[in-house]
Amino acid sequence: MHPLPKVQTTEVRERIARFQAKLQENQIDGAMITQNVDLYYLTGSMQNGLLYVPQSGEPRFYVKKSVARAEFEASVPVEEMGRMKQLGERLRSTFGNVKRIGIEMDVLPYGLAVRYLGFFPDTEAVDVAFMLRLVRAVKSEYELNQLRIAATHVQEMVAMLPQQIRVGMSEVELSAQIEHALRLKGNIGIYRMRGYNQELCLGMVASGEAAATPTYFDGPAGGLGMSVASPQGASRKTFSVGEPILFDISTVVEGYIIDQTRMAVIGELDEELTRAYEVAVSIIREAERMGKPGVPWQDLYLKALEMAEAAGLQQHFMGFGNDQAKFLGHGVGLEFDELPVLARGFAQPLEKNMVIAIEPKFTFPGRGVIGIENTYVVTKQGLKAITTTPEDIVRIPE
Amino acid sequence: MHPLPKVQTTEVRERIARFQAKLQENQIDGAMITQNVDLYYLTGSMQNGLLYVPQSGEPRFYVKKSVARAEFEASVPVEEMGRMKQLGERLRSTFGNVKRIGIEMDVLPYGLAVRYLGFFPDTEAVDVAFMLRLVRAVKSEYELNQLRIAATHVQEMVAMLPQQIRVGMSEVELSAQIEHALRLKGNIGIYRMRGYNQELCLGMVASGEAAATPTYFDGPAGGLGMSVASPQGASRKTFSVGEPILFDISTVVEGYIIDQTRMAVIGELDEELTRAYEVAVSIIREAERMGKPGVPWQDLYLKALEMAEAAGLQQHFMGFGNDQAKFLGHGVGLEFDELPVLARGFAQPLEKNMVIAIEPKFTFPGRGVIGIENTYVVTKQGLKAITTTPEDIVRIPE
Repeated sequence: MHPLPKVQTTEVRERIARFQAKLQENQIDGAMITQNVDLYYLTGSMQNGLLYVPQSGEPRFYVKKSVARAEFEASVPVEEMGRMKQLGERLRSTFGNVKRIGIEMDVLPYGLAVRYLGFFPDTEAVDVAFMLRLVRAVKSEYELNQLRIAATHVQEMVAMLPQQIRVGMSEVELSAQIEHALRLKGNIGIYRMRGYNQELCLGMVASGEAAATPTYFDGPAGGLGMSVASPQGASRKTFSVGEPILFDISTVVEGYIIDQTRMAVIGELDEELTRAYEVAVSIIREAERMGKPGVPWQDLYLKALEMAEAAGLQQHFMGFGNDQAKFLGHGVGLEFDELPVLARGFAQPLEKNMVIAIEPKFTFPGRGVIGIENTYVVTKQGLKAITTTPEDIVRIPE
Repeated sequence: MHPLPKVQTTEVRERIARFQAKLQENQIDGAMITQNVDLYYLTGSMQNGLLYVPQSGEPRFYVKKSVARAEFEASVPVEEMGRMKQLGERLRSTFGNVKRIGIEMDVLPYGLAVRYLGFFPDTEAVDVAFMLRLVRAVKSEYELNQLRIAATHVQEMVAMLPQQIRVGMSEVELSAQIEHALRLKGNIGIYRMRGYNQELCLGMVASGEAAATPTYFDGPAGGLGMSVASPQGASRKTFSVGEPILFDISTVVEGYIIDQTRMAVIGELDEELTRAYEVAVSIIREAERMGKPGVPWQDLYLKALEMAEAAGLQQHFMGFGNDQAKFLGHGVGLEFDELPVLARGFAQPLEKNMVIAIEPKFTFPGRGVIGIENTYVVTKQGLKAITTTPEDIVRIPE
């Protein structure tokens, strides 16, 4: 069918077993999975359809399009989906008496959910999104390797910056060059976010006051963007001497997203911004030390908040004033906004091999955003960086 | 706040009035709108929140983030959303007794929908997505102008092809060059699709057998893609002599998406593929003639099907065999998959100023995909092309 590398069957089986353990723990008889990324994770194929995962035993992937491609790619049995009306009957006769059925309530549109739930009348609907996201948060060696490859690509982008940045160049010009270089390295050109209405292109190449423009995006920096119809990220603003230039750059390798932020400046940053950068670095060092298995997710955020306050920068931390984002970091993997979430209210423990992007940043309205971000894997010794690009601010001579 | 051009208040008021007319027609008391594109369309701002549109009277935009930016951009009254618990009370006390409440059931996730519907207990929930999409399908002069500008950008891409294509170059190399050029012209780098799980980068630069690889995407061509985790569109396959190279290229200007397909070949296409291209052109000419206000959407598809059959190409039309897409064209605007849908079962009439991308294509497994696509506006005289790039196959000397 095609020459693209496939996900190993053992890898897929392991994922399904871990998800089934969660279903058992929560007394859920089975789950109907339909979101493209979850389908890919649990089958090895992103073809369109419905994957039924019973609490135990073999799942079945009912595919709409393309059946032939799914049969070739998937590590689970594939059947043609056929007509919706008969699908309910087929599911009931194959998987028997179902009392509690799981769906992905965070992404499955209401209209479709009602149809799918109709396959199992008089059944209790349960949200399995969080438990599946927890399974996905813990990465395998295969997944960590994809992230390590992606990390080398964003590192090369930072190495190229001194040759590229110049006064009068626009944010979008530089962003387009980076996007071009990453695309040639295999970036799929689509940055997947799970959150409703959240979207992203590359990340953010943003400078000075444009970077500090607030926006809807659930991140620490906003960005002016190209238009009111795309109010975030790179804009047509040009670079000037002495302003912080933020490179929050991601790339996607075999579906896996790495996330890293570095800073650049033409000439010199003033003292206040330089100091803010040092505080950001001290926060990330502390997070590295704290981030061990068993530590509650929120602890890293609360500690960072405390450090920002101690430095007198609480008003600027992760956005300014009313437009602050209320987290320190987020899981990355097949999606940009995975678990864990390092934010207040998340008392769940870190687990070995969870992958987290940690991004302490400070926003100064009218002046810019400054900070740092690395993607880490959780180990017994604390966080181990996957992104190992030098952390010094890239200084471009005037 | 910022220097980006804003949507005119008169434009936004007109849109709301047309949507309110639909709510009245369908005896819906009000609608809770939350999807980013619908919010932008009805307010002029894409900040995050909930827009309540009553059947008559002034809507209100309850914004989560950024309130300051929404106040600056939106042409409707903005309030801070505040806590979810109080929002229900505020809505009920402001908009009174509600019996039938509208939500966007095609995009709003189940979990959020249940929360929002909880604001109005004992109320009937109605899907307003199709009626809002019908309002959006008819474009204003302002919107048509954005599409015309976007059309000049994709035309320039086709003009550059002879200087770019060469034997041994990969699909993704060429795609990346086109993406780069379009980004500099203002493309936001995000191609919005409404359909669940549907996604896109640029469109498709695909050649020979790679273009004919079937995939989940609801379009006539599939594409090998960069990986199993992104199984569509451009791949690492390199161009060879004599194979059809498909340029299904889109760009996004001020949120508005244009869609156009042209063909290229290094050397010559064989007779069968050349003839298939001629059939595609004759189908699009017939659609142009038929596409007048009042004509049922499906008629254009059924006529095309008839013409493909008469030419003996029915097995190849819009994909091959079991992987055929069952439509001839789709609306474009702020999303890639707007109304109208030219497909069986859609008996709704075309209306003046609807915008449609029509894309007759033929798939030959192992050999490639060939066809043509233009974006049109519906006029009394039939379809008028917005994309006016020369339609000849771009021939590159060997």
